[in-house]
Amino acid sequence: MSNTIKIKEVKAFIELLGKAVAAASSKIDSIMSGVMVVAEGDEINIRGTDSSISVEASGKEITETAEQVSFVVPAKIFLDMMKKLPKGDVELAMEENRLDIKVGKSTYGISTMDCDQYPKPLQVEEGTTFKVEGTMFAESLACVAHATADNETRPILTGVHVLSNGKYLTLIATDSHRLSAKAVPLLAETEEFANVVLPKSAVKEITSILSDTDEVEFSITQNQLACRTEGLVFATRLIEGTYPDVTRLIPNEFENEVVVHRDEFLKALDRTKVALGKDKVATFRVVSGTLPTLNIECKTEITNIFEELFVDEAGSNDLSIKLNVHYLIDGLNSMNSKKIRLQFSGALKPMLLKPEIEGSTQFGLLLPVR
Amino acid sequence: MSNTIKIKEVKAFIELLGKAVAAASSKIDSIMSGVMVVAEGDEINIRGTDSSISVEASGKEITETAEQVSFVVPAKIFLDMMKKLPKGDVELAMEENRLDIKVGKSTYGISTMDCDQYPKPLQVEEGTTFKVEGTMFAESLACVAHATADNETRPILTGVHVLSNGKYLTLIATDSHRLSAKAVPLLAETEEFANVVLPKSAVKEITSILSDTDEVEFSITQNQLACRTEGLVFATRLIEGTYPDVTRLIPNEFENEVVVHRDEFLKALDRTKVALGKDKVATFRVVSGTLPTLNIECKTEITNIFEELFVDEAGSNDLSIKLNVHYLIDGLNSMNSKKIRLQFSGALKPMLLKPEIEGSTQFGLLLPVR
Repeated sequence: MSNTIKIKEVKAFIELLGKAVAAASSKIDSIMSGVMVVAEGDEINIRGTDSSISVEASGKEITETAEQVSFVVPAKIFLDMMKKLPKGDVELAMEENRLDIKVGKSTYGISTMDCDQYPKPLQVEEGTTFKVEGTMFAESLACVAHATADNETRPILTGVHVLSNGKYLTLIATDSHRLSAKAVPLLAETEEFANVVLPKSAVKEITSILSDTDEVEFSITQNQLACRTEGLVFATRLIEGTYPDVTRLIPNEFENEVVVHRDEFLKALDRTKVALGKDKVATFRVVSGTLPTLNIECKTEITNIFEELFVDEAGSNDLSIKLNVHYLIDGLNSMNSKKIRLQFSGALKPMLLKPEIEGSTQFGLLLPVR
Repeated sequence: MSNTIKIKEVKAFIELLGKAVAAASSKIDSIMSGVMVVAEGDEINIRGTDSSISVEASGKEITETAEQVSFVVPAKIFLDMMKKLPKGDVELAMEENRLDIKVGKSTYGISTMDCDQYPKPLQVEEGTTFKVEGTMFAESLACVAHATADNETRPILTGVHVLSNGKYLTLIATDSHRLSAKAVPLLAETEEFANVVLPKSAVKEITSILSDTDEVEFSITQNQLACRTEGLVFATRLIEGTYPDVTRLIPNEFENEVVVHRDEFLKALDRTKVALGKDKVATFRVVSGTLPTLNIECKTEITNIFEELFVDEAGSNDLSIKLNVHYLIDGLNSMNSKKIRLQFSGALKPMLLKPEIEGSTQFGLLLPVR
């Protein structure tokens, strides 16, 4: 049958489909809530796109078809059905306005959408290029992304800022209450650039599609960042506007520094979070001495917390600062070192968090709550 | 210090506390959102109650105190804090209007509530008694509970009906669209009774507190069911009213019966559920022959399912019936046999589900959707 796609590798097909589905729009009345599948011979190509990102995933010897078959079906339900199929040989058969998934004697039909209305395949435009180790770039984006703004009052802050100094990329996210940054080495000589701001959806997609890749080359134009890897073309619209200069926010002189054990500190903050309930702010106090401690104090209508953590090292200036406990937990969770250095510049100045690892380029910054 | 409780067994204390907290009210402005703790010598007693159920959990050698100490604190936050404590010796110290949980050099304070306002300890009233194997009673209640009504239009249907014929208890739940029933043998001679209707909250509590018990004696009065086991007194208000007679609903002549493999059937229903989306009804068709099948058919705006399952045995009368797929999944999930017998009496008559196990007393009933 010429209108039939035989799926030879169901698992590989689902993996490919998943990459495209992640890019599809969640607006169910849009053609972009569908994925477009084009199969010819032993090649399969699946596309997903919404208004800001698009993915084209392709593979060989996953499917087999006599003639070219193409269709657009609702993305999410197609993926869900494919994942739940019983064991057996799977065939996709095009009927009029319907795709039938056939396994054994059972048939799962899904209404198709109009192929002609589906957006054209994306182009990787030529522009400034840079090369990075894919896995490291994806992981670093995931590390900083928690600090992006949720609300759209300043759209530019909902994205991750990518800058190049020619030798490495700096990734920055801030919602103006906290900031997260990390550097990623560039694998080849690169132009300096700034103001490349990736939308959150693109960060999520890159984290997933590049999680297990080596060298990846990206290309940037005025409005777009794109990459092409084996079996994958990805592009995202960039957020327009000028990303604020955050360098003046970052203190470089400190009144005191302490080194804490990350897991122990996180457990204490988890207790504090429970005790705080709807409140979010606790006081953190550095107490120097022969056995220096970092104390956590907070008081709500029904709870009253005093927690004392021994720290590895501390300077001699006692100080206290009020911080958002949820933001602090996010910051610590984004760092995977056993120990974390906290750098204080005073009660009303930003606090820095740094993984206590030689050569680490990551840091977090929390503005105090007044 | 006379106002201090030393916790010797933190894990056992949390377990005891959990039983009482489960009975506490979720209305946070009520004194019943608290648990009352009374400690004296090496004995501890923790009480939780809301408007319908109450639990008194007690233990020995879990705590130690010089004099009697008693307090009421918000239930949920107390349990949450106790569960998240760091390692170390734990002490509970009563301060004015505050309970301090002390571990090492850290202190977690919780505001206390007025002990005098806390409801009096519950009494197990004398009445009709029955003895059952605790674990089996708890498990059987859990099996039938899914079929209770969620909405309060007919309050009596939100509970589980318990009847005695002198030799065994019958547990029945129905929301008038489906029904679930199971029998539990009585361990001693018992009066016949009916109209003992347990609220859903009581069923949940019994399932948790009796999950690992042998013989348990219950006592029933006009308004209350209570039991006393080692370290535990439990009582629940009964739902007032007359439980409807459901026996006439249950067919005893069948047009056809099929035996299905439970897991395979559940997987097919799971796919059907995905394909149905917001819809809930599918058509089930029994097709006899040398290789009899049970077919599932459903059609929505975007999907079209035809699923064919081979069945172990089937009679010769082909028939089809429309059923709520979610209810059918609930019914199958409540049965733990490998095979299930489905008994059909026609397109407009209830369908029965029975575990295909010798001597099983459990069954489910689904009314067809018209």
